[in-house]
Amino acid sequence: MAPDDAPAAASGYVQPEIDVEALARLLEGEYAKVRDLVRSNLVAHACVLEDAERLEREAFRERVRDIAVEMAGTGQTGMGFPAAYGGGDDIGASVAAFETLAFGDLSVLIKVGVQFGLFGGAILQLGTARHHDAYLADLVAGRLLGCFAMTESGHGSNVQALGTVARYDAEAGEFVVTTEGEGARKDYIGNAARHAELAVVFAQLEVGGQARGVHALVVPLRSGGQVVEGVEIEDDGLKMGLNGVDNGRIRFHGVRVPREALLNRFADVTPDGTYVSSIDNPNRRFFTMLGTLVQGRVCIGGAGVNIAKVALTLAVRYATRRRQFEASPGGREQLLLDYGLHQRRLLPLLARTYALHFAQDTVRGQLHDVFSGRDDSPDARRRLEARAAGMKALGTWHATRTVQEGREACGGAGYLAVNRFAALKADSDVFTTFEGDNHVLLQLVAKGLLTDHASEFEDLDQLGVVRYVTGLAVETVIEKTSAHKLLERVRDLLPGGEEWDQEAGLRDPEYQLAMLRFREEHMLAGLARRLKAGVDRGRDPGAVFSSVQDHVIALAHAHVERLVLESFVDAYKDRPEGGNKVALGLLCDLYALSTIEADRAWFMEHGRLTVQRSKAISREVGDLCRKVRPLAVDLVDAWGVPPEMLRSPDLLG
Amino acid sequence: MAPDDAPAAASGYVQPEIDVEALARLLEGEYAKVRDLVRSNLVAHACVLEDAERLEREAFRERVRDIAVEMAGTGQTGMGFPAAYGGGDDIGASVAAFETLAFGDLSVLIKVGVQFGLFGGAILQLGTARHHDAYLADLVAGRLLGCFAMTESGHGSNVQALGTVARYDAEAGEFVVTTEGEGARKDYIGNAARHAELAVVFAQLEVGGQARGVHALVVPLRSGGQVVEGVEIEDDGLKMGLNGVDNGRIRFHGVRVPREALLNRFADVTPDGTYVSSIDNPNRRFFTMLGTLVQGRVCIGGAGVNIAKVALTLAVRYATRRRQFEASPGGREQLLLDYGLHQRRLLPLLARTYALHFAQDTVRGQLHDVFSGRDDSPDARRRLEARAAGMKALGTWHATRTVQEGREACGGAGYLAVNRFAALKADSDVFTTFEGDNHVLLQLVAKGLLTDHASEFEDLDQLGVVRYVTGLAVETVIEKTSAHKLLERVRDLLPGGEEWDQEAGLRDPEYQLAMLRFREEHMLAGLARRLKAGVDRGRDPGAVFSSVQDHVIALAHAHVERLVLESFVDAYKDRPEGGNKVALGLLCDLYALSTIEADRAWFMEHGRLTVQRSKAISREVGDLCRKVRPLAVDLVDAWGVPPEMLRSPDLLG
Repeated sequence: MAPDDAPAAASGYVQPEIDVEALARLLEGEYAKVRDLVRSNLVAHACVLEDAERLEREAFRERVRDIAVEMAGTGQTGMGFPAAYGGGDDIGASVAAFETLAFGDLSVLIKVGVQFGLFGGAILQLGTARHHDAYLADLVAGRLLGCFAMTESGHGSNVQALGTVARYDAEAGEFVVTTEGEGARKDYIGNAARHAELAVVFAQLEVGGQARGVHALVVPLRSGGQVVEGVEIEDDGLKMGLNGVDNGRIRFHGVRVPREALLNRFADVTPDGTYVSSIDNPNRRFFTMLGTLVQGRVCIGGAGVNIAKVALTLAVRYATRRRQFEASPGGREQLLLDYGLHQRRLLPLLARTYALHFAQDTVRGQLHDVFSGRDDSPDARRRLEARAAGMKALGTWHATRTVQEGREACGGAGYLAVNRFAALKADSDVFTTFEGDNHVLLQLVAKGLLTDHASEFEDLDQLGVVRYVTGLAVETVIEKTSAHKLLERVRDLLPGGEEWDQEAGLRDPEYQLAMLRFREEHMLAGLARRLKAGVDRGRDPGAVFSSVQDHVIALAHAHVERLVLESFVDAYKDRPEGGNKVALGLLCDLYALSTIEADRAWFMEHGRLTVQRSKAISREVGDLCRKVRPLAVDLVDAWGVPPEMLRSPDLLG
Repeated sequence: MAPDDAPAAASGYVQPEIDVEALARLLEGEYAKVRDLVRSNLVAHACVLEDAERLEREAFRERVRDIAVEMAGTGQTGMGFPAAYGGGDDIGASVAAFETLAFGDLSVLIKVGVQFGLFGGAILQLGTARHHDAYLADLVAGRLLGCFAMTESGHGSNVQALGTVARYDAEAGEFVVTTEGEGARKDYIGNAARHAELAVVFAQLEVGGQARGVHALVVPLRSGGQVVEGVEIEDDGLKMGLNGVDNGRIRFHGVRVPREALLNRFADVTPDGTYVSSIDNPNRRFFTMLGTLVQGRVCIGGAGVNIAKVALTLAVRYATRRRQFEASPGGREQLLLDYGLHQRRLLPLLARTYALHFAQDTVRGQLHDVFSGRDDSPDARRRLEARAAGMKALGTWHATRTVQEGREACGGAGYLAVNRFAALKADSDVFTTFEGDNHVLLQLVAKGLLTDHASEFEDLDQLGVVRYVTGLAVETVIEKTSAHKLLERVRDLLPGGEEWDQEAGLRDPEYQLAMLRFREEHMLAGLARRLKAGVDRGRDPGAVFSSVQDHVIALAHAHVERLVLESFVDAYKDRPEGGNKVALGLLCDLYALSTIEADRAWFMEHGRLTVQRSKAISREVGDLCRKVRPLAVDLVDAWGVPPEMLRSPDLLG
């Protein structure tokens, strides 16, 4: 019994018993079967975790390729493709498979992501039957490897400004692909340095001398293992991690591809050189194309959550085994997790991991609904894209933070490669950057909120947003989010009268939700006002946006944290009574209150927390940590990280 | 001109010009010469940065050993040893040399630290003439390599509970050193796996059947490169980083060493087996021994600050070169550092790095004064130990945080090994753990504050502190720190009347200091009261301590941040007027106000910030960032990180 259980016990609190198997079933949800398949594949190839340390880089790249191809053979990696090409026709399952793969070596994960998610996804989503028929069956089977050549040395976040050009030569009926300038070389492209035979290349399309914006084409890189003429490939060299993935740089020196190489779902060029598209607005066309690739973000965010699970499984289990310093004179040394500070370090992260898990269920479900056509509308797509962007940012930052805290919580042992943190840290570090830099993604989320009621503006760039918001429609946002209206809406939720934020129980989910909703709407209104005021004062819109950028990020953060809490509450509130529900309730409260606590300065500054209540929330967080403490091992075990993926013989042994 | 300069310019603010050379001279201080020596050694061996990626582990270990020995030949690594043994007789210079070495490969840094700091330091500080004569000359020259065998698998933080035993055999006049149980194996010991011939082994001394606590002995590990009989060495294997250092595990199977092997400065065993010591209290004896090794913490904290400088030099210079997204329609893309958010991410870290630099000057000076005898008293030692512990924690966390933020701010480029962040991140990660886990160190700092007026209790363990604080003397702490007295003292500093905290200028250093002092003293009083209240209620002292542990850490944090601000203010307030002074003033304000901003919830909760003033501080931080922006490149250049240490051809080129 932890010495700190005393106050909880004294208050008549009865500690819940967790049914780990039932909890695991709840977490696995409808995708238990594919997750089991991935787990067994992970275990079958468990030695890749050691290969990552043992093998030379080139050998390790081959090993990772081989594993990815072998996994393809089990059907694991093709879940999202049409059955006609050997796929599973189930996009939700494909995301669940990817998430589960994140329990293992992350080079394998990213190799799979590059081949089946980015390359395969681009062919599937941007191409048409001719491309599907030509490539998908081989691609899904892992016989045809390819890469996704979007990012350039000069442009990562601002993809519309890419420098690679594809000019249509009507006479030859071909596109000529050229790297124009050093900044236009493709860079960090996974699969490029060694294995890709084809590339989906994003380039500025020029037809009849007219610039048509960024489009994607299939360009051959290798034939029979040899790089084809006109293509120049350079290895990106050693990276912080993910060294089983062969990232490289590509230059195109007037490479000619047939007209049919254009992935022409949204735009095409006729043989005589006429540009045609079903979408008139070039900006909207570009974002529509990009939007079809949203699955990548959903996958990476979910992978981040599962990386955090691996780190916490290690740190929590070590902390219930490792003792240091006596708790009472002459007594036995105390377990790390019985220290209040250690609980404070790990258990809010555990609660947040549960919260993000359920929020990931939501966004995966939305993705499935949109892409299966179950609920595909412009509105649904926009909601999905915003949520995917936000979840990718929060999930991957959560991974970075949790891996770091977990390593430190395991002390020097955490530094040994055999104990997993080395690979977790090095491999997952770039997750906050690829598939969209997190800060850029959060700006996208905020943009969506600012322009919520004007779907025709969904494809605005940063300046467009400023102009839009400072135009007529800003009044709508400001009005809609006026303090008065805000409080009215909150009162509808919490019928406690004027003093809802002072009287409600801290552990009332309605109170917690009301707080997060209030924060979000208040930030949205404030941001809109700031943008408008800046432009009204005659300042340059770029400067105005730059000066409020921290508010933009804060708003997006607040929005996603609110969505996460809603998913968590929805996930457990209707569960049958019992220990599992009680435990999930504790975790949900811990997530909600530690989230409010972390931003309590804002709530005080905006009149929604008194000093007394702010302190009470901190006390409640401490108390919740003490209550979660005895459940911690069950809670991490329910995630079902295969023991083979944990290694760490000394740390857990 | 950054678009965001507009508001600053409008207010009549004149941007200072920085004299980079003069600023660099100020930063180098009295140790410019030794720092130059280290810089030239770093440049001479610059290819080690590539060797770290290129060589097999064993070959890299040899390379790092060779470099450490070559550096020893230049006098760089022996500054802290007596001239009689080939040293430089200047402990301050030895710390400055170590700090500067942190600009380069960190395996070299830690190899040097293990050999000359830990091993050499233990021989010098715990041994007497017989050990000095036997080992120091060879050790300083790098001819005799050794290790510091303190940590065990079972005990890192709680060193008093080590399991290795050294039993005195009076008949033979020898100690028998034995690893008792698996937890007692020495672990993570640098230099052990390959290079050490000797080890300073920390073991429980048993003389005549009586336990005498932890003492250090010199034990041979290898002879002619072969591990000696009775010693068993295992390689710790691959680590997250620092793979040029050969960490290992050591087991002793009844290894016999002569009586003279005991490092007997503070305690000895006579030939007939009588234990004698100049310090009666065993606890105090142990902490006195440990206290002589404080230099290691001063070195690691300083290294952390310089690691942050490398990361920021890269991130700031990249951000003044890299453009992404247009600021105005059709205009050129905007430099990253002209984005308000990017400034917010990097510039407070830059200011904090300057602050920690000057605070490191202070602690290095104290170390020099104590160990050169210029100011050696129990009080001075205690102050030094507390400050060293606190600075080690803040300096190394700052490194972890800054490297991470810098990597993310450089995007995908930051992930390539050639751009330095990979090594910085992997190698520096364990700095928060070794030389004392940061959380454990901060508890030590807080203990020092709680028992400040009772030097006889300096060697109390955690439970002793609880008992002490809950005894009579707590009244002194509580009385001394009552809200009334606190405010009185603050008013002495800021003669602005009752409303000092509402009326003073935000950029008045006296205001900033008063805020940080108030926070510290208020936290100290609150902690003392909490401890007392818990024990008065009959709770177990261990549980009481555990439940207030986050307050303990917060207090220590507040204390060290206050010390850092004092050092910074002292360092620039008397400088001659001019651009450099103005720039340092901006940085000092940015450090102080961003520190207050980060904890503004606390200040609001404790009545020291109104909502309006809290918001004003956030605005001021943003404004300071905009003012520091045009100075940023000069400010990082003044640190003088050799270009060869930055690599990053594409990132800076």
